[in-house]
Amino acid sequence: MEAVITDLFYWVSIALMICIHAGFLAYEVGASRSKNVLAAAMKNLLTFSVVIATFFFFGWWFYNAFYAFPVGAIDSATAALPWSDDMGPNSTSVTGIFWGAFALFAATTGSIMSGAVLERIRTSSFLILTTVLGSVVWIIGAAWAWHGSGWLLTEWGWHDFGAAGCVHLIAGAFTLGVLINLGPRAGRFIDGKAITIPPHNLPLTMLGLMLIFVGFFGFLMGCVVYTNTGYFSIFGNETNLSAIAFSTLMGLAGGILGAYVSSKGEPFWTISGGLAGVISVAPGMDLYHPALAFIIAVVGGLIVPSIGKLIEKFGIDDVVGAVSVHGGCAVYGLVVSGFVLWGYPNLEGMPAINPLGQIGGMLVLTALGFIPGYLISLALKKAKMLRIPAEVELAGLDLSEVPATPYPEGIPVTTLKSDAEV
Amino acid sequence: MEAVITDLFYWVSIALMICIHAGFLAYEVGASRSKNVLAAAMKNLLTFSVVIATFFFFGWWFYNAFYAFPVGAIDSATAALPWSDDMGPNSTSVTGIFWGAFALFAATTGSIMSGAVLERIRTSSFLILTTVLGSVVWIIGAAWAWHGSGWLLTEWGWHDFGAAGCVHLIAGAFTLGVLINLGPRAGRFIDGKAITIPPHNLPLTMLGLMLIFVGFFGFLMGCVVYTNTGYFSIFGNETNLSAIAFSTLMGLAGGILGAYVSSKGEPFWTISGGLAGVISVAPGMDLYHPALAFIIAVVGGLIVPSIGKLIEKFGIDDVVGAVSVHGGCAVYGLVVSGFVLWGYPNLEGMPAINPLGQIGGMLVLTALGFIPGYLISLALKKAKMLRIPAEVELAGLDLSEVPATPYPEGIPVTTLKSDAEV
Amino acid sequence: MEAVITDLFYWVSIALMICIHAGFLAYEVGASRSKNVLAAAMKNLLTFSVVIATFFFFGWWFYNAFYAFPVGAIDSATAALPWSDDMGPNSTSVTGIFWGAFALFAATTGSIMSGAVLERIRTSSFLILTTVLGSVVWIIGAAWAWHGSGWLLTEWGWHDFGAAGCVHLIAGAFTLGVLINLGPRAGRFIDGKAITIPPHNLPLTMLGLMLIFVGFFGFLMGCVVYTNTGYFSIFGNETNLSAIAFSTLMGLAGGILGAYVSSKGEPFWTISGGLAGVISVAPGMDLYHPALAFIIAVVGGLIVPSIGKLIEKFGIDDVVGAVSVHGGCAVYGLVVSGFVLWGYPNLEGMPAINPLGQIGGMLVLTALGFIPGYLISLALKKAKMLRIPAEVELAGLDLSEVPATPYPEGIPVTTLKSDAEV
Repeated sequence: MEAVITDLFYWVSIALMICIHAGFLAYEVGASRSKNVLAAAMKNLLTFSVVIATFFFFGWWFYNAFYAFPVGAIDSATAALPWSDDMGPNSTSVTGIFWGAFALFAATTGSIMSGAVLERIRTSSFLILTTVLGSVVWIIGAAWAWHGSGWLLTEWGWHDFGAAGCVHLIAGAFTLGVLINLGPRAGRFIDGKAITIPPHNLPLTMLGLMLIFVGFFGFLMGCVVYTNTGYFSIFGNETNLSAIAFSTLMGLAGGILGAYVSSKGEPFWTISGGLAGVISVAPGMDLYHPALAFIIAVVGGLIVPSIGKLIEKFGIDDVVGAVSVHGGCAVYGLVVSGFVLWGYPNLEGMPAINPLGQIGGMLVLTALGFIPGYLISLALKKAKMLRIPAEVELAGLDLSEVPATPYPEGIPVTTLKSDAEV
Repeated sequence: MEAVITDLFYWVSIALMICIHAGFLAYEVGASRSKNVLAAAMKNLLTFSVVIATFFFFGWWFYNAFYAFPVGAIDSATAALPWSDDMGPNSTSVTGIFWGAFALFAATTGSIMSGAVLERIRTSSFLILTTVLGSVVWIIGAAWAWHGSGWLLTEWGWHDFGAAGCVHLIAGAFTLGVLINLGPRAGRFIDGKAITIPPHNLPLTMLGLMLIFVGFFGFLMGCVVYTNTGYFSIFGNETNLSAIAFSTLMGLAGGILGAYVSSKGEPFWTISGGLAGVISVAPGMDLYHPALAFIIAVVGGLIVPSIGKLIEKFGIDDVVGAVSVHGGCAVYGLVVSGFVLWGYPNLEGMPAINPLGQIGGMLVLTALGFIPGYLISLALKKAKMLRIPAEVELAGLDLSEVPATPYPEGIPVTTLKSDAEV
Repeated sequence: MEAVITDLFYWVSIALMICIHAGFLAYEVGASRSKNVLAAAMKNLLTFSVVIATFFFFGWWFYNAFYAFPVGAIDSATAALPWSDDMGPNSTSVTGIFWGAFALFAATTGSIMSGAVLERIRTSSFLILTTVLGSVVWIIGAAWAWHGSGWLLTEWGWHDFGAAGCVHLIAGAFTLGVLINLGPRAGRFIDGKAITIPPHNLPLTMLGLMLIFVGFFGFLMGCVVYTNTGYFSIFGNETNLSAIAFSTLMGLAGGILGAYVSSKGEPFWTISGGLAGVISVAPGMDLYHPALAFIIAVVGGLIVPSIGKLIEKFGIDDVVGAVSVHGGCAVYGLVVSGFVLWGYPNLEGMPAINPLGQIGGMLVLTALGFIPGYLISLALKKAKMLRIPAEVELAGLDLSEVPATPYPEGIPVTTLKSDAEV
């Protein structure tokens, strides 16, 4: 019966994570200016489909092959090759459902980047970058840092329940590397002064983030290992969904409240605070007391707008705050977890959780994300493939890239026959 | 294994209920005028996070302490204190997942009110009121009226499967109390004549309600007690999700059809009819035949626009019809249930379901909601803290409260290069 | 315990499928011109509620009575009559949860049609047609082609895991029959030349489709038979959700990529490609290797815009491409499955899967959908009940049918006090 419920468990996780992608579409479309709306939506759809497909053909193999440092376990990964029995319909294997949950994680990393680079990246280059991020880089990070035999755990005592490191931090660091080479949107900095370019439809962006919150419940249940007799983190520590419910909800609440205060009620940052809160508590959300999770999340929400401002100071234009929310809060959350959970035992034979391990692992994953993001985008830039021409950017991507218009009528005033009184 | 599936069961319930809050955000943003859009969204986010947090620190304790009338069980509630072992990560306890489901119910009560008071309440006062409603009042009601040892059950034979009383009625009655003191929006009544102030984006409001319907399936599965050998209502009556599927779907369908007819196809009331239908059948949805549920829901849908009109007659401005939909239909549904289910046995030693018990309980819960809502809002009014200044209301809340704009470009007409033919 | 988890399993399926209807509302509202927005939304709500209600009163009976050809099993269907013990709350029966899942399938068939006929069909006629489709025609098709004793299986070796035939094909064929009699929208064809009438809000339409993708995970888990010891297709073949996760995700990804290429990046077709992909692989998604599913889906996505063009060539105006996406891809997918799965054994005593069976069954279901759709709409046309008057169409349906307006303010430019710099 265990396999049957395992299948159900992760199927639900996958279904909920599809909400993340519905949410990302609304979020990024809303965050664009009206001249780039459909180009943003298309980037989203392509991210999802390119990452899912490549994650089947080679992404999953990296997870199974790379958990020993740096590449020492390749022979153990034959079951993850596309022609293996486990990688097809097979009623005695649950590989498909695990692959599916990981594929959705993979697509999420790609979508984290896609919001940041909106409105000026070339689609072809973007697809190369999103494939590398979603089907190679993050999943090597997951093999190292989110695997029961990953070397960060076995060597350094790493603990990161909610994938703050391999998903959020790697995606954020990779994105930062890309943004440095991509450069800001035209008009984003004038005489060194940062100019806000507001979302054309902030309510749609906010609805998108709410759907991402729904999807987070799929993501976080996907971080749990189901067995008929109990739940475990992927690192083998006993836990349950009750613990995760406490810390997820307190993380959401705390992050929103913190960001509300620090952003003085700015809606984009306030709602992003929900993400910031959950990511901040993600490393230890199986172990934190709910009140502690709340405090860590409040602080995560408090600092996230400042991280955004700091990145802006360097002339970097991150349209949706992906680097600060995903990268910044993951760094913060991982560092905090090292101190708060110091000494908490891992499975027998592995080092206990400790600040050096958490900080060291954080640095390793930052490098693992940043370096390929920076180098590949630099190469694409040198090849003049990274960015759209200035005149296309000015006119809007929809005009040149997309054979359709988002709002052919605008949204005109509509009236009732009997509407004189309104 | 029971604890493992219990965890999964209510985790899914919680995840689906997050859709309620995605829905409420879209619903209330759409229902505002364009000058108040972001202020509405912020109220929503704050409701969610303030209620979740306070519900951890003291809300859950009320549920465990207050089931005997009026406050006789306080010593049995030590396990619900924030420092208890059960209120933290603890792999032998499923308290977290129950707390989480209740916390989402709590946030829902707060969001029911938030729609009604849009466009003129002061945020600070609103947060006080939503905390009292979401983390004190309704949960005392739940202890009395939605608890296996609640005094309404043990003394009066109360039955209310779907929390029509403690969630919908208390929220509606509390909201009514607040609305009386808050007063209508400027321009809502001119020379005693009611003027409709239409939603600025009715499609968004309707999409929001559809997402709330999705969330209802989380809410109603959260009303079921899972055991490995069968399902029970919170009052201990045997039931199953098959019964609830019948009555939920027939309730949705009936309510929409009824409201379509009585509102002559007005979209806001028609879609609200779905809520009206489910709330109308909620008290007995584990026991009603589907055809009976359909009829009760049709009538609920038929009457709900009239309840709205009636409230309007008293000069009360309920932006989203919360009092009529949640309060009115809960009253109707509870009264009907008393007659239809008359004599249905409760667990041994408790009175059978009966009209006096249902009507009496309904009156108790109405008072429990109305009195604090009225008194606290009166005090806030006296302190001149309840309502925003008239000039702020006229200019729109976004201008003074929110450092962002929802639609900085409006929604302009977009065109294709080749678009001459359209 | 099996009944308990069965209840949970299909409850989740139903909840996710409600997302399909949230999605359809957004999708069809977005696809309308601004003058028909609310009429589109109302049609959606009425489809849902009328089909659910009628599916209780008689739809479910057809499924149980009609699996033998053509009507030979009526006496075995007494348990599906509305007054049977199984059709009420009954803690020893799980009929309600199966009925509920089927009711959502039924509502989906109605909604597939509703998008195609937007902007010119009369509501009364539409409700007749949607009732016939949702509560009679498709469910007879399901009895024949999606039932463990259906005659297409027992006589011809039919296999159609994901209901491509009884849901998508029947709905598409029925819709085609209606569209022929209904005629195109005014201005859709001028001097025989097709003129695109673009969606008024393409981002909303795309968000709707993403929500439909979420709902697909409910739909496809609803195609699985849960038992405590393993999963089966409705035809009795062993399978599991791992297999379905592989083919669903690869189908989505492949269909989007294929349609992106063939439509040259047109957003509506690209995102519809996700549906096209899943429908194309639906017949064999329990049996296909993921790489094969990907290829079949890519081809499905590649051809779907051409099917749309072909239908347009005949002067048929299908607002949302329902005939091509649901009908066309189901035909393609069923034909392909006959060849690819040729010889795969069904349960003992039944013919193996074979091309003649798959093609024959496809033709039977096409006829079963097309003929009543064509004849009933022809009769309605003769009675002058099918289409709204030309002047109403010109002015927009909202003006005459709906006592509300979608955007009473339009979406005006909103500004910050300090917004000089933007």
